[in-house]
Amino acid sequence: MSILLGDREYFKGIGKIPYEGPETDNPLAFRWYDENRVVGGKSMKEHLRFAIAYWHTFCGSGLDPFGGPTLFYPWDENSDAVARAKDKADAAFEFITKIGAPYYCFHDVDVVDYADDVRTNEKRLQTLTEYLAEKQKSSGVKLLWGTANLFSHHRYMNGASTNPDFQVVTHAGAQIKMALDATIALGGENYVFWGGREGYMTLLNTDMKREQEHFAQMLKMAVAYARKNGFKGKFFIEPKPCEPTKHQYDYDAATVIGFLRQHDLLDDFSLNLEVNHATLAGHTFQHELQVAADAGLLGSIDANRGDYQNGWDTDQFPNDLQEWTQAMLIILQANGLAGGGINFDAKRRRNSTDVADVFHAHIGGMDTVARALLIADKIRQNGEYDRIRQERYHSFDGGKGAEFEAGTLQLEDLFGLAADGGEPAMISGKQEYLENLINRFI
Amino acid sequence: MSILLGDREYFKGIGKIPYEGPETDNPLAFRWYDENRVVGGKSMKEHLRFAIAYWHTFCGSGLDPFGGPTLFYPWDENSDAVARAKDKADAAFEFITKIGAPYYCFHDVDVVDYADDVRTNEKRLQTLTEYLAEKQKSSGVKLLWGTANLFSHHRYMNGASTNPDFQVVTHAGAQIKMALDATIALGGENYVFWGGREGYMTLLNTDMKREQEHFAQMLKMAVAYARKNGFKGKFFIEPKPCEPTKHQYDYDAATVIGFLRQHDLLDDFSLNLEVNHATLAGHTFQHELQVAADAGLLGSIDANRGDYQNGWDTDQFPNDLQEWTQAMLIILQANGLAGGGINFDAKRRRNSTDVADVFHAHIGGMDTVARALLIADKIRQNGEYDRIRQERYHSFDGGKGAEFEAGTLQLEDLFGLAADGGEPAMISGKQEYLENLINRFI
Amino acid sequence: MSILLGDREYFKGIGKIPYEGPETDNPLAFRWYDENRVVGGKSMKEHLRFAIAYWHTFCGSGLDPFGGPTLFYPWDENSDAVARAKDKADAAFEFITKIGAPYYCFHDVDVVDYADDVRTNEKRLQTLTEYLAEKQKSSGVKLLWGTANLFSHHRYMNGASTNPDFQVVTHAGAQIKMALDATIALGGENYVFWGGREGYMTLLNTDMKREQEHFAQMLKMAVAYARKNGFKGKFFIEPKPCEPTKHQYDYDAATVIGFLRQHDLLDDFSLNLEVNHATLAGHTFQHELQVAADAGLLGSIDANRGDYQNGWDTDQFPNDLQEWTQAMLIILQANGLAGGGINFDAKRRRNSTDVADVFHAHIGGMDTVARALLIADKIRQNGEYDRIRQERYHSFDGGKGAEFEAGTLQLEDLFGLAADGGEPAMISGKQEYLENLINRFI
Amino acid sequence: MSILLGDREYFKGIGKIPYEGPETDNPLAFRWYDENRVVGGKSMKEHLRFAIAYWHTFCGSGLDPFGGPTLFYPWDENSDAVARAKDKADAAFEFITKIGAPYYCFHDVDVVDYADDVRTNEKRLQTLTEYLAEKQKSSGVKLLWGTANLFSHHRYMNGASTNPDFQVVTHAGAQIKMALDATIALGGENYVFWGGREGYMTLLNTDMKREQEHFAQMLKMAVAYARKNGFKGKFFIEPKPCEPTKHQYDYDAATVIGFLRQHDLLDDFSLNLEVNHATLAGHTFQHELQVAADAGLLGSIDANRGDYQNGWDTDQFPNDLQEWTQAMLIILQANGLAGGGINFDAKRRRNSTDVADVFHAHIGGMDTVARALLIADKIRQNGEYDRIRQERYHSFDGGKGAEFEAGTLQLEDLFGLAADGGEPAMISGKQEYLENLINRFI
Ligand SMILES: [Co+2]
Ligand SMILES: [Co+2]
Ligand SMILES: [Co+2]
Ligand SMILES: [Co+2]
Ligand SMILES: [Co+2]
Ligand SMILES: [Co+2]
Ligand SMILES: [Co+2]
Ligand SMILES: [Co+2]
Repeated sequence: MSILLGDREYFKGIGKIPYEGPETDNPLAFRWYDENRVVGGKSMKEHLRFAIAYWHTFCGSGLDPFGGPTLFYPWDENSDAVARAKDKADAAFEFITKIGAPYYCFHDVDVVDYADDVRTNEKRLQTLTEYLAEKQKSSGVKLLWGTANLFSHHRYMNGASTNPDFQVVTHAGAQIKMALDATIALGGENYVFWGGREGYMTLLNTDMKREQEHFAQMLKMAVAYARKNGFKGKFFIEPKPCEPTKHQYDYDAATVIGFLRQHDLLDDFSLNLEVNHATLAGHTFQHELQVAADAGLLGSIDANRGDYQNGWDTDQFPNDLQEWTQAMLIILQANGLAGGGINFDAKRRRNSTDVADVFHAHIGGMDTVARALLIADKIRQNGEYDRIRQERYHSFDGGKGAEFEAGTLQLEDLFGLAADGGEPAMISGKQEYLENLINRFI
Repeated sequence: MSILLGDREYFKGIGKIPYEGPETDNPLAFRWYDENRVVGGKSMKEHLRFAIAYWHTFCGSGLDPFGGPTLFYPWDENSDAVARAKDKADAAFEFITKIGAPYYCFHDVDVVDYADDVRTNEKRLQTLTEYLAEKQKSSGVKLLWGTANLFSHHRYMNGASTNPDFQVVTHAGAQIKMALDATIALGGENYVFWGGREGYMTLLNTDMKREQEHFAQMLKMAVAYARKNGFKGKFFIEPKPCEPTKHQYDYDAATVIGFLRQHDLLDDFSLNLEVNHATLAGHTFQHELQVAADAGLLGSIDANRGDYQNGWDTDQFPNDLQEWTQAMLIILQANGLAGGGINFDAKRRRNSTDVADVFHAHIGGMDTVARALLIADKIRQNGEYDRIRQERYHSFDGGKGAEFEAGTLQLEDLFGLAADGGEPAMISGKQEYLENLINRFI
Repeated sequence: MSILLGDREYFKGIGKIPYEGPETDNPLAFRWYDENRVVGGKSMKEHLRFAIAYWHTFCGSGLDPFGGPTLFYPWDENSDAVARAKDKADAAFEFITKIGAPYYCFHDVDVVDYADDVRTNEKRLQTLTEYLAEKQKSSGVKLLWGTANLFSHHRYMNGASTNPDFQVVTHAGAQIKMALDATIALGGENYVFWGGREGYMTLLNTDMKREQEHFAQMLKMAVAYARKNGFKGKFFIEPKPCEPTKHQYDYDAATVIGFLRQHDLLDDFSLNLEVNHATLAGHTFQHELQVAADAGLLGSIDANRGDYQNGWDTDQFPNDLQEWTQAMLIILQANGLAGGGINFDAKRRRNSTDVADVFHAHIGGMDTVARALLIADKIRQNGEYDRIRQERYHSFDGGKGAEFEAGTLQLEDLFGLAADGGEPAMISGKQEYLENLINRFI
Repeated sequence: MSILLGDREYFKGIGKIPYEGPETDNPLAFRWYDENRVVGGKSMKEHLRFAIAYWHTFCGSGLDPFGGPTLFYPWDENSDAVARAKDKADAAFEFITKIGAPYYCFHDVDVVDYADDVRTNEKRLQTLTEYLAEKQKSSGVKLLWGTANLFSHHRYMNGASTNPDFQVVTHAGAQIKMALDATIALGGENYVFWGGREGYMTLLNTDMKREQEHFAQMLKMAVAYARKNGFKGKFFIEPKPCEPTKHQYDYDAATVIGFLRQHDLLDDFSLNLEVNHATLAGHTFQHELQVAADAGLLGSIDANRGDYQNGWDTDQFPNDLQEWTQAMLIILQANGLAGGGINFDAKRRRNSTDVADVFHAHIGGMDTVARALLIADKIRQNGEYDRIRQERYHSFDGGKGAEFEAGTLQLEDLFGLAADGGEPAMISGKQEYLENLINRFI
């Protein structure tokens, strides 16, 4: 992939980020991510399918609940919304091609600022869609997924698809339609729903059942529309337990899977799992991956990390090798992500104000994930890790255990087997042994 | 209900707890729980169906992870297991009849200590079943539900129904069978599963999918056995996110409902919701009640409370009027608990070592719940609270909103309605207004 | 207090909020806050010294990390900063006099928008100070405390007084000086430090010791300047554990007290405790109050509440009667707040967009606190609550226990007393009894 | 160090754990801990001063709040308390010498079971002290610290030194005296206070101020007694926020330091910091280390780890390389631990029931810490990490910044400097750069 510049260069002094290997002391080089290196029969690039998130990386202002913007972008200066959006697209493709990511992701309003008129917005997005299509073609960068931002505008303060006011629901629908149109036009491989306002601020004013039925209804309409218009990709739901609302309906993987099953949406949907959302929900990232994998719904990943001492979505860049090693083990066992990739839904800290910081942030994240892939592959090559887990259940692989699994025993049979078999031997769970085994390969 | 004593009186100096009304300063009287008072057409007794938990109230030792027993019971002194169990039953029925609860609940090993031989245990439990049946008959006290303790014995350290060793699974099955036999023989109205070891300590050694399938298998076998033996009651699953294991499969209401739906168990099961388990899972108690109610699965309640500064299951007695008022609103809207009752899965603090303390604890809990019922009833009589919530969704009660609900609109229709309808008005969620409205009645 | 309007009325249709008593169904009346009602020898007004927070109530935009403004104010429309600020002051005094609060509080930038030039800002604030002085005089409303906002401007992204760049520290000092000038000119009774950026985002780049010494240095300079200029009031530090930074130095009451003692600042400072900051730090509000009271440093309160399922500063209005009853007991035992008052550092929800909502929010908060005062007073009149706690320690009121307290025993003496005295009796902590006792008065 | 066996071998089939280097696949060998390897001028053994905790490693039963013992020890079978204690000591020294730790730590009741008679206990502990002294001499193993268990016996249910009943306080004093005698006799290098019951279950029955004064009194008596009897070592306080009580007075490092300063105990005391206690208090381990180091009070470490999804003290063995690398950086910057060492206050999981598991657990922990030492040393050798942090504050190293630090500027001076100097440049905090820098060396 060669660098794609627009009219001007925005990230001056920084070129294409090269792979230089673990021994380099160049902070603007990859130490582990070597896109063409083959691991277990696939290139790193194919395994990881890294994507750059338009919103944090090109739109994030550094604003937080107690402070104003700290990040001021040269591509954000034109007073015309469409021209400004094109400048941003230029900057985006410059960054994406310099960092060497094969994919990007966006919300509608990341791509171009929306006005308060639906048809104006439609036109703006169409214009930018054409512009982005051109840039994709020139660079080879592809769209991993598109989505609609149904949480920032004040009209969504009480919900989008789950808003008690139907007129608001129509706006949610309109935005989804336009974002689907753009995604399809750009060859987007997937479409994501993250329902930041689809939940409640207080149960006191909420009919949760009715709101969730409305949400299911909207998902069905989106699928129908997209399929009708030729979209072959997956739909993803991204769980998050809370923030911005007190409680969001897409709380965690298990909740979303239950909802999809209830509303007969399992065929079209799978999950986009975010690390920080897992931990906010009281789970490890690995747990959420495993839940999704067990249901055959492991679709995509929003890579970042939270802060265990802070109770909000800090969306820091990934840097935890042990977490990612275990995550990669699960992903490899599941034969990879089904259709999705690894999108950096992560933002540099608001006080990381140097131009280079956004590169450091992504390089650190990409290297962490790539290194974890290499480690996980070695663990699987070694074989002991998978074997121990499998052998732990061998009593169900034959005999009465297998009959139990087949459903041919009755409770009275278990009684007899217990009474006659006597007290079982104690079998160690070997947790520390396994933890050491993992660390051996790091 | 008159007091039922055994050979000796265990709670000397304390008689039947009377209702004396809000103005009393007698700490051993009810101020709000007046069992025959009619509220919304039913007596308080019928609404609340209070149950006493055998384990905490008659077996709890005060032991914690850093300290030994502090509670020493006179009914715990006989060296013969069966005789000791009968003494305990005497104490239990003395307490239950003095406090005036219509129900009790137990695990198998609460009722009588188990040995390490299955058939011995069966005999012991049968003996005590007969003894308890006699006491039920004499007192009028009934069994709300029975259950098997599948978490305390060291054989369950790696799981019970989800243990990787089939021989352990047979023991789980044996205990369930015996506990079902006892529950059926005693006219128990329900049977509960709380899976304290049905989860994992580390994902590294766990095949979560296979373990959960084993769990579903066991539930099916239990239902089949019970139905065959004439049991007409409900089965409950009690969610809890963690503790004792790092992660339990029955994490919260949404997770359990998803599991029941996946394994086609919705007809026989509903939920037993515990306050402290809700808060450990990151939810309010009200949220869990509403999730269950929306699924038609609001079965029963384990009443207690947690400590928001402590991250474990403190199981304190309920005393939060605002929490219970909102809970009662949901229960009343759902037309009550389906088959279950309100069981005090709560323990006095380990330093509450006076004989009277266990009475104070239950009186405080019963009064809190009863008072909340009265408040919730007043709120519903007033009507404004229900009305505001209902009217909030009126745009779906007709016109295009109703068509949306009916599934007859397409995404393009929403687009058109949004574009033509323009920006919706901002409608207040009235949260503070509603919070004040609730507090007005407390 | 009569209503003070400016050129126009901003809260039309809402007049002076009257006290109507518990039975009223008027949502725009107080049910418990009756300012002249005498409780334990002081009027409610004197006990509670309610203050309105300029920032949330007149400046809060409803913006959150995932969404833009929802609250649009008619006083925010003038394009001239000073004229706009005067409009806001008019609105503020209209609200304050309608709600009937005797005090208000502000940050410098709440009162008037700051430009990027220090001397311009000084002039703006001086102009507004004169305007506010006039309004105070006309209305009788007083300034509980002033403060400088050292967290919102991007220059403070790495800290204010603790910034690694001295030039930023000078700006912090300049703002403090100007805010002190305004506070003194307005007869402000106290001055507050809340150090939202005085902490770290990562320890990796932080010299915590040096930063804290800088903070102490700034506090000393502020005290010296204020005393030189005639300020007789208290300085408060408001603890908060985190947010916006990962970790703030003024973590909780104990940490701040330790810091004040280390830097010899105990004479001039005491604490301003916020409910939501207590709970974010892992404490109850009552705990923080007690820690401060025990140190003789219970200065003032920022009244609000958090959400136990959300890990950020939700700053909701108080409505928990049980929490506030226990808080009031501690405040009454400490003979009240030393110099401070009860400031509503609380914001209506961002979807509470009706004009009346800000009244409902404050009425609910004021009524909750007032009602808690009445309950706490009744509990203290009853006397049993205080008596039980005092008697619990009677073994130290004389004999060897008193000698222990006096420091005249040695470890060997304790050994002898233990060996000879034998095993102590077990004495119940009576927790449930006491919890019931409190609830009896609610 | 050669293996020291007693009358029988307890850990059969496992010999001395050798160092075999990173490439070994022997799970019973060290891969990183090479005791004689010199790092920055000191051997690993001297840097780390590893200690084995008697309680978890030789006494831990596997009991948890929901389950009974799972770990059954062959040294626990003799019915005579003293003989049983000697067997345990034999097992302990066998393990300690096999694992190759230079130190151990104990509570009084770990060493020998206590009866309910003080003088009997004194005799038992003296007998075991002689026995242990002999074993120390034979093996070369030393006592890092001793302590008294003032939390497990039911008499301490309301506190030990802070108990409202003076007779209980005398027992605490008696135990401290005996534990000090043993520690001194065994050449123990330090003495620790962990106050598991020194806190409250409810504020409703607690005079926190009086209780804390009692605690300070006891600490002073212990110091006086120990110094009189020739003890030259350090006293440590080990902070923990809660568990077993709702709130413990030794909440975290800052709280304890404030308490020590208030009661003039800074000369004799420093801190023993536990990883899991740091995280339970809402801090990182690194934060607690830095707070102690900044106060010159970084004494010793209880090495373990918690579980971020579980809210109790899981006391798992350390295995987080990134956490320990940053910890080691702080320890090296502070010139090591002052007097203390690294004690494994960690327990294998209750289902780790193989004899080898306790070895795997310790090997994993020791290797993690040793590897982190090597990494931290490399980072310090490289120098960039320390340099960036230091240079960040250069504006205070001269000029007006230095005058500010010296206290010779006034607030008016800052105003002038701000106004004249204008808006400061924005300086990146370089967080991601530094995070990458650390990871480069892992
Ligand atoms: Co995301
Ligand atoms: Co996020
Ligand atoms: Co329960
Ligand atoms: Co519980
Ligand atoms: Co505040
Ligand atoms: Co706040
Ligand atoms: Co420890
Ligand atoms: Co611990």
